[in-house]
Amino acid sequence: MSETLVCVSDYESMAKRVLPKAVFEYYCSGADEQETLAENTAAFSRWCLLPRVLRDVSSVDLSVNVLGQRISMPVCVGATAMQRMAHLDGETATARATQKAATGMMLSSWATSTIEEVRSSAGDGLLWMQLYIYKDRELTLSLVRRAEKAGYKAIFVTVDTPYLGKRRDDVRNRFKLPPNLKMTNFTSSKLAFSSAERYGEDSGLAVYVAQSIDPSLSWEHIAWLKKNTRLPVVLKGILRAEDAVEALNYGVDGILVSNHGARQLDGVPATLDVLSEVASAVAGRCEVYLDGGVRRGTDVLKALALGATAVFLGRPVLWGLACKGEQGVIDVLELMRNELHLAMALSGCRSLAEVNSSLVRRPEFTSKI
Amino acid sequence: MSETLVCVSDYESMAKRVLPKAVFEYYCSGADEQETLAENTAAFSRWCLLPRVLRDVSSVDLSVNVLGQRISMPVCVGATAMQRMAHLDGETATARATQKAATGMMLSSWATSTIEEVRSSAGDGLLWMQLYIYKDRELTLSLVRRAEKAGYKAIFVTVDTPYLGKRRDDVRNRFKLPPNLKMTNFTSSKLAFSSAERYGEDSGLAVYVAQSIDPSLSWEHIAWLKKNTRLPVVLKGILRAEDAVEALNYGVDGILVSNHGARQLDGVPATLDVLSEVASAVAGRCEVYLDGGVRRGTDVLKALALGATAVFLGRPVLWGLACKGEQGVIDVLELMRNELHLAMALSGCRSLAEVNSSLVRRPEFTSKI
Amino acid sequence: MSETLVCVSDYESMAKRVLPKAVFEYYCSGADEQETLAENTAAFSRWCLLPRVLRDVSSVDLSVNVLGQRISMPVCVGATAMQRMAHLDGETATARATQKAATGMMLSSWATSTIEEVRSSAGDGLLWMQLYIYKDRELTLSLVRRAEKAGYKAIFVTVDTPYLGKRRDDVRNRFKLPPNLKMTNFTSSKLAFSSAERYGEDSGLAVYVAQSIDPSLSWEHIAWLKKNTRLPVVLKGILRAEDAVEALNYGVDGILVSNHGARQLDGVPATLDVLSEVASAVAGRCEVYLDGGVRRGTDVLKALALGATAVFLGRPVLWGLACKGEQGVIDVLELMRNELHLAMALSGCRSLAEVNSSLVRRPEFTSKI
Amino acid sequence: MSETLVCVSDYESMAKRVLPKAVFEYYCSGADEQETLAENTAAFSRWCLLPRVLRDVSSVDLSVNVLGQRISMPVCVGATAMQRMAHLDGETATARATQKAATGMMLSSWATSTIEEVRSSAGDGLLWMQLYIYKDRELTLSLVRRAEKAGYKAIFVTVDTPYLGKRRDDVRNRFKLPPNLKMTNFTSSKLAFSSAERYGEDSGLAVYVAQSIDPSLSWEHIAWLKKNTRLPVVLKGILRAEDAVEALNYGVDGILVSNHGARQLDGVPATLDVLSEVASAVAGRCEVYLDGGVRRGTDVLKALALGATAVFLGRPVLWGLACKGEQGVIDVLELMRNELHLAMALSGCRSLAEVNSSLVRRPEFTSKI
Ligand SMILES: Cc1cc2nc3c(=O)[nH]c(=O)nc-3n(C[C@H](O)[C@H](O)[C@H](O)COP(=O)(O)O)c2cc1C
Ligand SMILES: Cc1cc2nc3c(=O)[nH]c(=O)nc-3n(C[C@H](O)[C@H](O)[C@H](O)COP(=O)(O)O)c2cc1C
Ligand SMILES: Cc1cc2nc3c(=O)[nH]c(=O)nc-3n(C[C@H](O)[C@H](O)[C@H](O)COP(=O)(O)O)c2cc1C
Ligand SMILES: Cc1cc2nc3c(=O)[nH]c(=O)nc-3n(C[C@H](O)[C@H](O)[C@H](O)COP(=O)(O)O)c2cc1C
Repeated sequence: MSETLVCVSDYESMAKRVLPKAVFEYYCSGADEQETLAENTAAFSRWCLLPRVLRDVSSVDLSVNVLGQRISMPVCVGATAMQRMAHLDGETATARATQKAATGMMLSSWATSTIEEVRSSAGDGLLWMQLYIYKDRELTLSLVRRAEKAGYKAIFVTVDTPYLGKRRDDVRNRFKLPPNLKMTNFTSSKLAFSSAERYGEDSGLAVYVAQSIDPSLSWEHIAWLKKNTRLPVVLKGILRAEDAVEALNYGVDGILVSNHGARQLDGVPATLDVLSEVASAVAGRCEVYLDGGVRRGTDVLKALALGATAVFLGRPVLWGLACKGEQGVIDVLELMRNELHLAMALSGCRSLAEVNSSLVRRPEFTSKI
Repeated sequence: MSETLVCVSDYESMAKRVLPKAVFEYYCSGADEQETLAENTAAFSRWCLLPRVLRDVSSVDLSVNVLGQRISMPVCVGATAMQRMAHLDGETATARATQKAATGMMLSSWATSTIEEVRSSAGDGLLWMQLYIYKDRELTLSLVRRAEKAGYKAIFVTVDTPYLGKRRDDVRNRFKLPPNLKMTNFTSSKLAFSSAERYGEDSGLAVYVAQSIDPSLSWEHIAWLKKNTRLPVVLKGILRAEDAVEALNYGVDGILVSNHGARQLDGVPATLDVLSEVASAVAGRCEVYLDGGVRRGTDVLKALALGATAVFLGRPVLWGLACKGEQGVIDVLELMRNELHLAMALSGCRSLAEVNSSLVRRPEFTSKI
Repeated sequence: MSETLVCVSDYESMAKRVLPKAVFEYYCSGADEQETLAENTAAFSRWCLLPRVLRDVSSVDLSVNVLGQRISMPVCVGATAMQRMAHLDGETATARATQKAATGMMLSSWATSTIEEVRSSAGDGLLWMQLYIYKDRELTLSLVRRAEKAGYKAIFVTVDTPYLGKRRDDVRNRFKLPPNLKMTNFTSSKLAFSSAERYGEDSGLAVYVAQSIDPSLSWEHIAWLKKNTRLPVVLKGILRAEDAVEALNYGVDGILVSNHGARQLDGVPATLDVLSEVASAVAGRCEVYLDGGVRRGTDVLKALALGATAVFLGRPVLWGLACKGEQGVIDVLELMRNELHLAMALSGCRSLAEVNSSLVRRPEFTSKI
Repeated sequence: MSETLVCVSDYESMAKRVLPKAVFEYYCSGADEQETLAENTAAFSRWCLLPRVLRDVSSVDLSVNVLGQRISMPVCVGATAMQRMAHLDGETATARATQKAATGMMLSSWATSTIEEVRSSAGDGLLWMQLYIYKDRELTLSLVRRAEKAGYKAIFVTVDTPYLGKRRDDVRNRFKLPPNLKMTNFTSSKLAFSSAERYGEDSGLAVYVAQSIDPSLSWEHIAWLKKNTRLPVVLKGILRAEDAVEALNYGVDGILVSNHGARQLDGVPATLDVLSEVASAVAGRCEVYLDGGVRRGTDVLKALALGATAVFLGRPVLWGLACKGEQGVIDVLELMRNELHLAMALSGCRSLAEVNSSLVRRPEFTSKI
């Protein structure tokens, strides 16, 4: 495999070739017409960087604190479900790679590796737990307990999924896990999304969510969760400033501006398009992160300039994993680090403290056509 | 026919394959360059949804009142002519499907099934009558009388068609009905658009309109109609706020913001683009509806947020009918219901009362190219 | 030739097939990258029509006065050079067709038929003379004298051509007239653009202009022309409001807002985009016309709404002529008449007096991409 | 080679055919996704020219002063590295052509011809030296000394390259010089970018820059350079108004608004988009130039209208050189001169003094789609 992979989209192209069609489509799809999916990346192109020159960028420091933990760069690994469909080693490979890159990894509730397996693969690496609220509260709490015990450093509770978004390809493919895989954090065949269960003619995962996830998900659940864990709680999936402010009232420790990689409600704004208003409303009272469409070093820089403390990668990590397993994830993370380093140097920023909104501009030029 | 049809455009693709070319083109065409046709759908993409999270959407109520009748969802069947070209059972199949979906159907004056046939197919379903004003006023009134007698609940008088719009494909195809079909509400061969009549080298329907429909159509006709029926009268085809206000002066009971599916005057705005100014001008003094380009649950939600009480589907119903007859129409209506349910749930709305303009936003970002 | 031609672009497609490549390219080209060429038509799509309904449009009057002459519609034939390349009968066919359509024709200085031939073909039809200012003032004046004598009703002096624009295809084709044709208003081989002359490796016509047309063209020439003719003088090729006002100081009788069909300076605005500011500056002190990109009835209506008294067609007439000679020009003119009639009726205008700027709107919506 | 080349893009197409793939790609690439590359040219299309007519343009003067030297037109040759990859004669051919066109040439530090060779080829032609600041200050100064001695008239110090931008094709191609060529201003194999050196799997040039160029490049270097030369110093690569003002504090003699042909940081604005704010901030205190995307006479005119004293051509000169050596460069320069002459004449400007911002306009029209 001597092919040169020079940017994230090269990894995507190769992943498309090596993955089974239904797996690739599950990974890459957005909801409905995928308008928001296109927006998530297009939004980065709507902002310009206005570089400062002649600032001595012989050394550039990318390190940052996330919820009190120091990591080597403001680029983290986001939660993506069922990674063993991409590579035999799945989440354990991702965890090893993330640790080597000295950044943090968020593990999905729907992992095909257990909380404990991932912990032991990650060595002393930084891990966070992504949490779905199940109808069964005890079950939900047991996930939290296991994450606490395994030394995960925060709970990212996903708030945008009372139902699963409509991803057309998954309906067409009647998407379910291959027979050899399970969501191994769960013991019952039904909760483990076993392919032996029956899901009718719909997306299997949509049926799974309708059966098991709590559609009554509300602020009261956040209060309950805060009461039941000492770990920091971050809300994953906020797009409105007023919801961010409400979250502060519930004592949350962070806000992840996310539209679930455009996989839930099509037609919502690109995350970058709402980031600065959420960040303004939060006004430093907790950390704000962003995910969705981050593919280049300049994307990271723009998100930081508009108020994010760090960003999370969803699909790019899956592409790395699909192409080359652990090494692929390392490669993608190092590629992002190098691009971010170069973007900072060429725009005259020596540390993240020097990155602010004066670095970016949204052109007011209008098109003739 | 085990093909999976997951969205309205899947139905359109299949309809294109199963329908004779001239029929498909009559159904799908817009006027002239079809700029407004493209706009009607594009307009929905120009608005974003800004979802609220954590609102307990375990139950979502889609029901609504239209002109005093309760229906199960704010998605109704609009008037489209000559449905037996799509399927043997034509309007009677549509009527059965609409009743099963517990919503309302508007029957075209130009149906290939009679007012009475449709009534009896629809059971106790909700029906409305679409009315063209013919040069022959008595004839026009007889349609109203028959609709009243058959228990139709309102007259939707079409105000945008003193002449037929120029649909290039219909001119090229010299469009007329197949020999076995007629507009069966009329007895004379000429008024029934019989293929035995001569229509020269033009669109047969354009010639029909020039011969029979009243080009002097004016506010005076509305006064006359109001005087001659006890049924609520809705004006179908309003695009200007001032015309909506004038309509109120004539005592109309509803305004359907419509550009006739972009089939009359090309270059008029998308209906969604004028909806909120019409709704503001009307200021609740009558109900306001919209049709044109509604294809997805999120489209419905955006129209409601901008002031519509309900929306009407034109072509999507024809595609369902062409693909699978009555079942196809049911499928399309249920698909729209499911998508609307999901859109409401994922944006945090538990009932239509919670849908308002704070849910949507038109991005001010400008393009770089 | 039983092909159905339903719109101007159908005529263009057919013309492309029937004309020699270099002729078609001479006719259709714009200058340089042809950005303004694309803009000339795109500008019409940037404006919406906001129709009024219920206004009794059983009769619609399209007639209008141009420089004191009544014509049947506000759509006239513009000056295009060398029409015998399109059809054997060239300008004489166009003149006959224009007279039959009861509108006016502007004859190019560079016609391949003489001023007198065209006069006699046109019967009592309305003719105007387009004038290029030659380095040889006497020669220039002789064209005016002949037009006066033949009963032409105005001089349209072209002010945008001190040099010929760079039309890349004409350079590639080393464009010149076929051997059998000449600009027959001139006797010398050089002035008649005879193919026997040598034009090097450039566009022959660009060389011709450099040799014969006066690059010192200035306001002084307008004063001189006004002094030397009793005919109304119209300036063809104004794009700035201040030039229009200056023209009024020189006593001109009309302003034709034109960019020469995008054939002179690429990068100038579409004519529709500057029309209303020119019309505002002129403030009714003379008539204002427009040409450039008019292809549909709705285009005409938009131009009238924004301040034009009438519009001129350039290329569409050539396409009609190339397809079917005189009959083709008649067809194109009647097609435009029918489309304009329908556009007026469907927007609720019974006469040109009812057309004004409240009929149109430039949408303020901005794109997401 | 009888092919007619009528515009710069014709030269580019031909260059693409005649050059080895890796050379063409090195020449044409921009950084990363090449968004800024597309912007650099697109920006010119966003501005309209508003021509004045009737101004006697029989003579049009294009000459201008640059840093006190008179040149025949405001179009100069910018610094592009390694020109012998395009043609055997490389920079010496470019120098001869530039002199014949009576304009100025900026020689790259990374030339494949020496400072002295180029001087002797250029006759009495105007030359400027482009300077990269090497880690080795003495070496850097020796370049300046040699340029001074050879009669170069200014130092253009490139301030946007503390590291080399990521040009994906160069990484894929592992770009390095062919074995027969060197950067001949340097004697050591390493500094001369000899293909015998090892550059690993990256772009060879990126590795070269990381090894040799000073990443600590800062304002202090500008002060040092000013102290060490009597030649005027121009900063090449300014995009922010505040950096331009700071440059004035350091006594620079000119500002070249440049983004390095979009080859350094992707996502920065098109140079034309920031030109007028830089020019306003400078307020005449030094000369302001622009490069990036200039391809047509109208582009030059727009840049002058927005505040540039002159513009520089990068790639167009390489295309001319690749197609026909010295004659190709002459052709490209004469083509630009002719187009600029025509653009000025057709917009009513008789000299550069008549070109100002009233000539251009950025349309405010917004798109419907
Ligand atoms: C294949 C896939 C699976 C995902 N699984 C989860 C998940 O289990 N839990 C969750 O909160 N988000 C999940 N997400 C959303 C991601 O955490 C993240 O929000 C999104 O992928 C970021 O966008 P990007 O893919 O454009 O980087 C998933 C996304 C993808 C693409
Ligand atoms: C094939 C077809 C036939 C139609 N026939 C009628 C009709 O007979 N009377 C009428 O008022 N509107 C008619 N319309 C307009 C529809 O009532 C409705 O305004 C339009 O179809 C809505 O747009 P949509 O097709 O994008 O949903 C027709 C539309 C189509 C597509
Ligand atoms: C082939 C061709 C020849 C033309 N010849 C002349 C001419 O001789 N004199 C003149 O003033 N304008 C001439 N024009 C410009 C037209 O008068 C008119 O401004 C333009 O064609 C209008 O734009 P349209 O072609 O988009 O309708 C010519 C245009 C074309 C396309
Ligand atoms: C192939 C190539 C090599 C270049 N080499 C240099 C260089 O050695 N030094 C420098 O300051 N700029 C260099 N540049 C940037 C140019 O000086 C100039 O800024 C740019 O090419 C202008 O944009 P254009 O190519 O769109 O005209 C180079 C550009 C290209 C395309």
